[in-house]
Amino acid sequence: MSIEYNHPEALLARARRIALLCLDVDGTLTDGSIDFDEDGRESKRFHVHDGLGIALLRRHGIDVAFVTARHSPVAERRAAELGAEAHTRIKDKRACVQEMLARRGLAAGQVAFMGDDLVDLPALALAGLAAAPANCHPWLHDRVHFTSTRPGGHGAVRELCDLLLLAQGHANAALEGFGGAQ
Amino acid sequence: MSIEYNHPEALLARARRIALLCLDVDGTLTDGSIDFDEDGRESKRFHVHDGLGIALLRRHGIDVAFVTARHSPVAERRAAELGAEAHTRIKDKRACVQEMLARRGLAAGQVAFMGDDLVDLPALALAGLAAAPANCHPWLHDRVHFTSTRPGGHGAVRELCDLLLLAQGHANAALEGFGGAQ
Amino acid sequence: MSIEYNHPEALLARARRIALLCLDVDGTLTDGSIDFDEDGRESKRFHVHDGLGIALLRRHGIDVAFVTARHSPVAERRAAELGAEAHTRIKDKRACVQEMLARRGLAAGQVAFMGDDLVDLPALALAGLAAAPANCHPWLHDRVHFTSTRPGGHGAVRELCDLLLLAQGHANAALEGFGGAQ
Amino acid sequence: MSIEYNHPEALLARARRIALLCLDVDGTLTDGSIDFDEDGRESKRFHVHDGLGIALLRRHGIDVAFVTARHSPVAERRAAELGAEAHTRIKDKRACVQEMLARRGLAAGQVAFMGDDLVDLPALALAGLAAAPANCHPWLHDRVHFTSTRPGGHGAVRELCDLLLLAQGHANAALEGFGGAQ
Repeated sequence: MSIEYNHPEALLARARRIALLCLDVDGTLTDGSIDFDEDGRESKRFHVHDGLGIALLRRHGIDVAFVTARHSPVAERRAAELGAEAHTRIKDKRACVQEMLARRGLAAGQVAFMGDDLVDLPALALAGLAAAPANCHPWLHDRVHFTSTRPGGHGAVRELCDLLLLAQGHANAALEGFGGAQ
Repeated sequence: MSIEYNHPEALLARARRIALLCLDVDGTLTDGSIDFDEDGRESKRFHVHDGLGIALLRRHGIDVAFVTARHSPVAERRAAELGAEAHTRIKDKRACVQEMLARRGLAAGQVAFMGDDLVDLPALALAGLAAAPANCHPWLHDRVHFTSTRPGGHGAVRELCDLLLLAQGHANAALEGFGGAQ
Repeated sequence: MSIEYNHPEALLARARRIALLCLDVDGTLTDGSIDFDEDGRESKRFHVHDGLGIALLRRHGIDVAFVTARHSPVAERRAAELGAEAHTRIKDKRACVQEMLARRGLAAGQVAFMGDDLVDLPALALAGLAAAPANCHPWLHDRVHFTSTRPGGHGAVRELCDLLLLAQGHANAALEGFGGAQ
Repeated sequence: MSIEYNHPEALLARARRIALLCLDVDGTLTDGSIDFDEDGRESKRFHVHDGLGIALLRRHGIDVAFVTARHSPVAERRAAELGAEAHTRIKDKRACVQEMLARRGLAAGQVAFMGDDLVDLPALALAGLAAAPANCHPWLHDRVHFTSTRPGGHGAVRELCDLLLLAQGHANAALEGFGGAQ
């Protein structure tokens, strides 16, 4: 079947336990560009594939949250559109993730975190599944369990969503929901 | 001649019957980026090559329609500029295509659909010619008849337009219209 | 020297005669994206390298003009910034170029034209040096004398400017102007 | 360790002396796109990776300045956000760098300059470490000591920041600051 991947069993074992997906914004949900107009107003470019992946996770009981150090009304709006929690102006991403885990009664092994730069390392080190987009800072590569083939803002998050759906046995259900099962 | 391609005969046979081309918007007519400014206002990036391809199809009697799940004044405006029908906020793309076929008295074999993600699968399964851009979700690859070499928003739609023009014998007429026939 | 290229002598001979450079806008001076916001307002992305190339040509006596079929205040503004003529809403680009040649008393062999799609073919067929960016429509490839290695909006025009400067013996003067001669 | 690179010793020796990093804006801190809307208002796309690199340099005592020929409120705003000096509308970048050196009592060998086009050559020729992004004008390649692997606006500046941190022995401290030391 076309939806099979050659994910290593150790990675799939990590993915099977995940109940919460936490996502950095700039460089992960976007390509890392910080766009300013002359008035200093910021815009961001998310990707439609990531949006559907997040919707599918939520349909199958996996929560999603955005965690970003920047003040970002745009990220808050995109999170609201997708039914994800938005945590902005977060200085300590690891503490933010720990608070979300405590609130839900989850263990660290049940959270996946995707981030693209050094500021994400403490949260990545905590997470049961640590992931990075293809365009991540090179020092992250051997500190994560999974690196996507597509860059941030171009479907990196969707690859992680697909991994979680596959590992948890929901991929065919997702396809069937759109009439594409085999 | 430089306008020849090595399209398989089975694909050309499908392309010869097409009288209506239906196009997903985000990821197909655009690169899939969802751009928001701080006020939540959305912008989109279409491609000039796709615009000319759509104009050429219409000149040769092939109708074109945009079909998108999102609310999108931008897509409506671009469609109007190109003389294409715009169907936005469409929950069931397949039903939307079927309605367009019924209104025109066309069979399913006479519609081509290009889309890039799972939500497009039901409409793709219906269409006589199912197509996807290079950057489509990987689960679509073996569920379409044609995958373009250029990604969405960078000329993917134009490649499909060219295929239809070639199959229906209009490519040289198109070139001659611009003084480029050989 | 690092500024040498392996341009064929026939191409250099064409480039030596050029006194006027005419440039398509969308897909040539830009990457072909047509950006609309919700109010239908258009923006465009030019490239800083092309701007310097145009400035260098003008310093060495080669005129530059933009020729586009679209209504585009943005193109007019960019042309004004660079001291180039702007011809917008042009239905017949070839006639527009011919008028510019007549006004200057130039022969067709003295104009270079760079364009990326079929609508540019009549003007390209007229020009002494016909050029296209890397991302041009594939039917153009064997109808031009020069295809740049960089795509439109990412320095394609600058490559053509450099070719003209090199052919006419101004490349070292350009470098010296910036203290970089060898 | 994953943060090792195979930088030549001569390059590291240059990098060890740097106390001031001067950066061109368009094409270096951005991808070189000049974006205009219909009112001629300009926007720019910086990259989040470069921002963190600049913050890390400043934390370790290396000053950072933007030097651009264009009038650019956007560049001024981004510089302010990152605690960098902003020099805009600069006709003579070399003189601007020399003034910054004189003000700080630094030698030319203590400044690094990254730029992407011919206008940057005089400043590059002055600098102890001359650098260019992957997408620089080709005539720069053999006039700089370091060319990044990533293009401007996609992390080119961060690579230079990492080189300075590594050469000056701050890379592990930077990693430790984020809990990622090995």
